[in-house]
Amino acid sequence: MAEMIYFDNAATTYPKPSSVLSAMKNALEIYGANPGRGGHDMAFRTAEKIYETRVEAADFFHLPEPECVIFTKNCTEALNTVLWGIAEKGGHFLSSSLEHNAVARPLAAIEREGICTWSTADIGATEEETIKNFKEGIKENTIAIVCTAASNVFGTRLPLKKLSQLAKEKDLYFIVDAAQGAGILNLDMQSLGIDFLCAAGHKGLYGPMGTGLLLCNNPKLLKPLMQGGTGSQSMLLQQPNIYPDRLESGTLNVPGIIALAEGIRFVKKQGVEALYQKEMRHIIKIYEALSACPEIQLYEDITNPCKQFVPLLSFNINDKHSEEVGAALAKDGIAVRAGLHCAPLAHNFYHTEEQGAVRICPSAFTTEKDVNCLLNSIFKIAKSG
Amino acid sequence: MAEMIYFDNAATTYPKPSSVLSAMKNALEIYGANPGRGGHDMAFRTAEKIYETRVEAADFFHLPEPECVIFTKNCTEALNTVLWGIAEKGGHFLSSSLEHNAVARPLAAIEREGICTWSTADIGATEEETIKNFKEGIKENTIAIVCTAASNVFGTRLPLKKLSQLAKEKDLYFIVDAAQGAGILNLDMQSLGIDFLCAAGHKGLYGPMGTGLLLCNNPKLLKPLMQGGTGSQSMLLQQPNIYPDRLESGTLNVPGIIALAEGIRFVKKQGVEALYQKEMRHIIKIYEALSACPEIQLYEDITNPCKQFVPLLSFNINDKHSEEVGAALAKDGIAVRAGLHCAPLAHNFYHTEEQGAVRICPSAFTTEKDVNCLLNSIFKIAKSG
Repeated sequence: MAEMIYFDNAATTYPKPSSVLSAMKNALEIYGANPGRGGHDMAFRTAEKIYETRVEAADFFHLPEPECVIFTKNCTEALNTVLWGIAEKGGHFLSSSLEHNAVARPLAAIEREGICTWSTADIGATEEETIKNFKEGIKENTIAIVCTAASNVFGTRLPLKKLSQLAKEKDLYFIVDAAQGAGILNLDMQSLGIDFLCAAGHKGLYGPMGTGLLLCNNPKLLKPLMQGGTGSQSMLLQQPNIYPDRLESGTLNVPGIIALAEGIRFVKKQGVEALYQKEMRHIIKIYEALSACPEIQLYEDITNPCKQFVPLLSFNINDKHSEEVGAALAKDGIAVRAGLHCAPLAHNFYHTEEQGAVRICPSAFTTEKDVNCLLNSIFKIAKSG
Repeated sequence: MAEMIYFDNAATTYPKPSSVLSAMKNALEIYGANPGRGGHDMAFRTAEKIYETRVEAADFFHLPEPECVIFTKNCTEALNTVLWGIAEKGGHFLSSSLEHNAVARPLAAIEREGICTWSTADIGATEEETIKNFKEGIKENTIAIVCTAASNVFGTRLPLKKLSQLAKEKDLYFIVDAAQGAGILNLDMQSLGIDFLCAAGHKGLYGPMGTGLLLCNNPKLLKPLMQGGTGSQSMLLQQPNIYPDRLESGTLNVPGIIALAEGIRFVKKQGVEALYQKEMRHIIKIYEALSACPEIQLYEDITNPCKQFVPLLSFNINDKHSEEVGAALAKDGIAVRAGLHCAPLAHNFYHTEEQGAVRICPSAFTTEKDVNCLLNSIFKIAKSG
């Protein structure tokens, strides 16, 4: 297999740290019982190991109670659980104009069902403008502000602290889709005042695909999206009123969850701030090189001090379709994602719904050499007409 | 670590075949991209590998279209997807009296929401009696018969073929919870006329925990339980009308799904019938030994030719709580499950709701020696008063 240079880390990080790989292997061999479902040593040992991941995740996001860490199969399930779980007849959701379909499609479905309405607030040129737009978007019946920590296509960050303050003032839930923020931004749920945080385990947290997290930092007991066996209060024909049982029905992804703890430990060891700085250096280098090339269209000035970004960016070459550019990069052994990235709202906002965009996202494992190869390939494609 | 004798295979099979372990390792190293989310080699390679599991599963259960194999995180999610997905205002669900909470709790929730009502039909002493009870349970507004392939506590099998015929006669959906049947029973969806089959990947199919299957053999397009990015029709703010995309939102459990294919291949290689015969021999030996012991209470005569069972059985010792017996077995290094097994309906039916029951379930890896150790330990506990 030819060596590949991987810049598709916003879809899933690759490679994973070696500790994640060995944790997965150990999980199948040593922690092979169903936690909470047996009264024997391996079941207890497995349950303790699963609890370790709750503790790591709670500590990482500054959530006081590890029991309020809910394991889901992906960030999408976490988002569906909280959005459907708080939707109350007659309410209204306010989201940003950059949301992924993991937020937009559940909200559209909740609206189609006639449960709640939904509208979006545009991202402004400054944080103040963004806050103003959100403020104007709040209605009498608004129940929650839902927003992504950062656009999965353009990297644009949202002013979480200020949005949270606005939500608190108006007595609204504040829900954050941290799919592209977890692991690279300091998402302290306490100091940021986040009520519900949803994250993928397999992106910036370096766990395996098949893992997601819902962190609940609000006394509101969510209505479960699914019902089933919880290994607790089994005679009751309804979900227990305690977390995590209430929202975790059926068998957990034991190997994935155990490996996720190692992913989180890897991030802690590297340091979120250090990872952010390192990856931003790569992205700024890429940005500066690409902005000097007239054939290349960029969508955000990531050096603009009035705005903040996560280390990812999207571009296009003249009027070539993004998929064509992605395929040309793939021929050079470079992995990116092109197309719409499941984020039509963001593409509408940046007027890229026809062309899509080519997305570049580094990880902790990206090197200078990778960046140079990427740039050479992009320039070659741009100049080839 | 002392060697453990594992009879908790109805919770999850252990150990897994070595091919499953190495598939999981390879998945993290070679198939590390997000399938359907990138236009590069590893993304294509991963997508093809995921499709292989669909083909294996479709072939195994005789489902014509691999696209109608939906990957879920567990059997519970599969059951919730189909039950909520077909529930229509004013309808009625008819289930057996042996259902697990993965069926009972969603049906109870659907009833509490005022969408459909739900009632159960008792299992009879013969198949004919069971069918008669189901026939009598069907109402004008019944939309589906839902039943477990076999009780997860008592091993009792349901007459699937006859129930399916009854469902067809009355124009009802026929939904099977195959959590305890998949891999050990020949569940041919075509010849049995099963519309929707739900299975755990980590039990009789020998895949890792974190995997489940929903197989759709009916043109009815299920209403999705979750909405999100599908990597397809991304400009639409609703789920695509095609399977599997419609019901698979967000990133899949790639390593789990790839490893599941190896689990299914393992079962195919051993042969379902051969595995059934082998495990039944163990269970009949255990049954005969235990029935000769006056301190031991058994609940079903698994040698009764009028009834059929899967290879698992539950027992109690005098009036000792099942958890106490489970703990005593654990002390001898034997892993079983005691308590209620998330199946209150079955315990009500067998009047074991107070004591619970101690469940024994062998796997392909169980040996005669394991069985002898188990019996010795049970007798020792029974005689110790």
